Amino acid sequence: MAKKVTKKVTKKETKKEKIDKSKKLIQALKNHGAQIYEDLENGEFPKFSIPNRSISNIIYDKKLRQYVLGTNASLRSARNSSQLRSFTQLLWLAFFANKLTHEKKSSTLRDVYYSSQAFAVDFEDQQESDNIIVDLEAVLSQPREDFFVFPEERSSIFGDLTIEYTIPGYEGKTQNLSSHPDGYAIGPSMTSAQLTDTSAEMVIAIEKGGLFTRFVEEQVDKKFKSIIINTGGQAPRSTRTLLKRLHDELGLPVVILTDGDVYGEHIAMVIKSGSANAAHLRELTVPDAKWMGVWATDIDKFKLPTIPMTESDIKRCYDLLKDPRYEEGLWKRELEVFIKIKRKAELEAFSKYGLTNITEKYLPKKLEESKSF
Amino acid sequence: MAKKVTKKVTKKETKKEKIDKSKKLIQALKNHGAQIYEDLENGEFPKFSIPNRSISNIIYDKKLRQYVLGTNASLRSARNSSQLRSFTQLLWLAFFANKLTHEKKSSTLRDVYYSSQAFAVDFEDQQESDNIIVDLEAVLSQPREDFFVFPEERSSIFGDLTIEYTIPGYEGKTQNLSSHPDGYAIGPSMTSAQLTDTSAEMVIAIEKGGLFTRFVEEQVDKKFKSIIINTGGQAPRSTRTLLKRLHDELGLPVVILTDGDVYGEHIAMVIKSGSANAAHLRELTVPDAKWMGVWATDIDKFKLPTIPMTESDIKRCYDLLKDPRYEEGLWKRELEVFIKIKRKAELEAFSKYGLTNITEKYLPKKLEESKSF
Repeated sequence: MAKKVTKKVTKKETKKEKIDKSKKLIQALKNHGAQIYEDLENGEFPKFSIPNRSISNIIYDKKLRQYVLGTNASLRSARNSSQLRSFTQLLWLAFFANKLTHEKKSSTLRDVYYSSQAFAVDFEDQQESDNIIVDLEAVLSQPREDFFVFPEERSSIFGDLTIEYTIPGYEGKTQNLSSHPDGYAIGPSMTSAQLTDTSAEMVIAIEKGGLFTRFVEEQVDKKFKSIIINTGGQAPRSTRTLLKRLHDELGLPVVILTDGDVYGEHIAMVIKSGSANAAHLRELTVPDAKWMGVWATDIDKFKLPTIPMTESDIKRCYDLLKDPRYEEGLWKRELEVFIKIKRKAELEAFSKYGLTNITEKYLPKKLEESKSF
Repeated sequence: MAKKVTKKVTKKETKKEKIDKSKKLIQALKNHGAQIYEDLENGEFPKFSIPNRSISNIIYDKKLRQYVLGTNASLRSARNSSQLRSFTQLLWLAFFANKLTHEKKSSTLRDVYYSSQAFAVDFEDQQESDNIIVDLEAVLSQPREDFFVFPEERSSIFGDLTIEYTIPGYEGKTQNLSSHPDGYAIGPSMTSAQLTDTSAEMVIAIEKGGLFTRFVEEQVDKKFKSIIINTGGQAPRSTRTLLKRLHDELGLPVVILTDGDVYGEHIAMVIKSGSANAAHLRELTVPDAKWMGVWATDIDKFKLPTIPMTESDIKRCYDLLKDPRYEEGLWKRELEVFIKIKRKAELEAFSKYGLTNITEKYLPKKLEESKSF
């Protein structure tokens, strides 16, 4: 039997990091607020400098292996009457973010939209308030989760990982994530927890809940010393944050298992290198993450039952080929095979060879292979 | 301080019930199999008798307060060449259900579709295999969850409830569901667990994850002695099963909180009395469950910000008015108000009055009111 390797993280370090993050955020908000006051006292129109998020300022950084914003920024000033509305909205949001962070109360994108109405701050619709939230992220270079604005989606996690909560009422309480086989929801308390202890040697992210359950039942966590994460389709940002933390703080490699289609390939890519939408943030990517499958080339290799690709599937392949991240290697090769075979296969397709075929045959083979790419 | 009332359920009873359920299912499958052999030995064509699930055989049972199937049944026989295909499919599924139940391996609707291919049983698409699964449910009068076929959707639960797992590898292990504030996923291990202990006096089901998190943060579980469930929109069947068990086994009243629109009203109705689609089952309803809000009449009463209803929202109201369950009382009244005001309001709309308005003002008021309807 293999020796159990336990990784223990120095608690003080992560705790400090967490506190620093909140402190850093509140300090940044304070600085921006002080600047506004200063402008007013000097008889000037108050303003924000906002990094430009338009396509022309989004650059793929090959060294960082993710999209980043260029150096262009624009001024949003109360002097310009056409900017007065969005200036006020942003100022209010900074105030509200400060309030949420101080009170440690989580909210959603939808909540922010409605909360603004209490202050007679007018947003046409949620699209408008969502945009201002992204502006504030760009101004602060911190994701909205840091100021307690969360999405609706949930995904879940299972495996031998002990966490220690930091949210009010739960500080210092610990939880081992191998004790509920249906999985633990990944929400504010999970992403803000300290990751204190694990015997796992890798993280396996899976696109689908049904497979997640299969993996738990087949004890993939024990057999492959892994933490299993159900991304529930495209991984929500809080899940990507957690994946990054598992990689960076615990040094765990991350492998990704998706359906064998262009959307699956892109789910893996977004975990690895982010989306252009979040080019203004750097906390959501795991550049070393590996897409383990299902590859287009696996379809033939493992004789999987397939479904024909639709016109829009094929168009999506051609679109991605123009993305700099798909310009070479595995990513390009697999897209080209999809285009050639015009067929796709789901994770459940392995069930043709028995329910445990995916965990007993496919997974070990691909894990072995993944050491070399 | 109020005295903590703890409900303890006799373990042996629920365990016995659970075992009986699996035994009952396996026995029923065995009987059907034996009948097929007998037919063959007698030189007859083998057959199944399948309760008719067409609209004409779906009746609203006012006493049971749910849809049920009438007494019409049809014979599916190997004699009839047009039925040979669906007869074979059903026979295979019965074999596969038996295998899953014996091995306690969970699968999904999608898995069943692919698994059939290992046996050269042909399904055109998943729609066809889904239909056969419903046929088998009707034949057995047991939901597919009993033979380990689960959906993809997940919802989650939080509160002072201790469960004891019955799935392999976890038998006898207990879990208290108040220890992970992001919630525990409701999957096979949760729905099959014994519900052993709780101090809660009610269950609050909420339509949205964001509100679920709010309720946990505001300690609604403690302040209102409740178990909180996030249905994630329309409640998945496994969640409805759990709601029923919390009501029936622990005697807990169930209240439901949805968006203030016709879809929210129907989410509550489906938890209460099921859907016509599941008229062949009786294990998924909580007839005593109460829809606490957001009512159409609450919109004006609580001065909520609203969104205009679309044409299709309004059409949906008129459609539901034809449903026998919406013929009277609260259900009819609220639909009529929606039609009159042509506006709807979401749960997040309360944020206009502060993030805690919903838990501090609305919830206590409606809980008090709900005692009288």
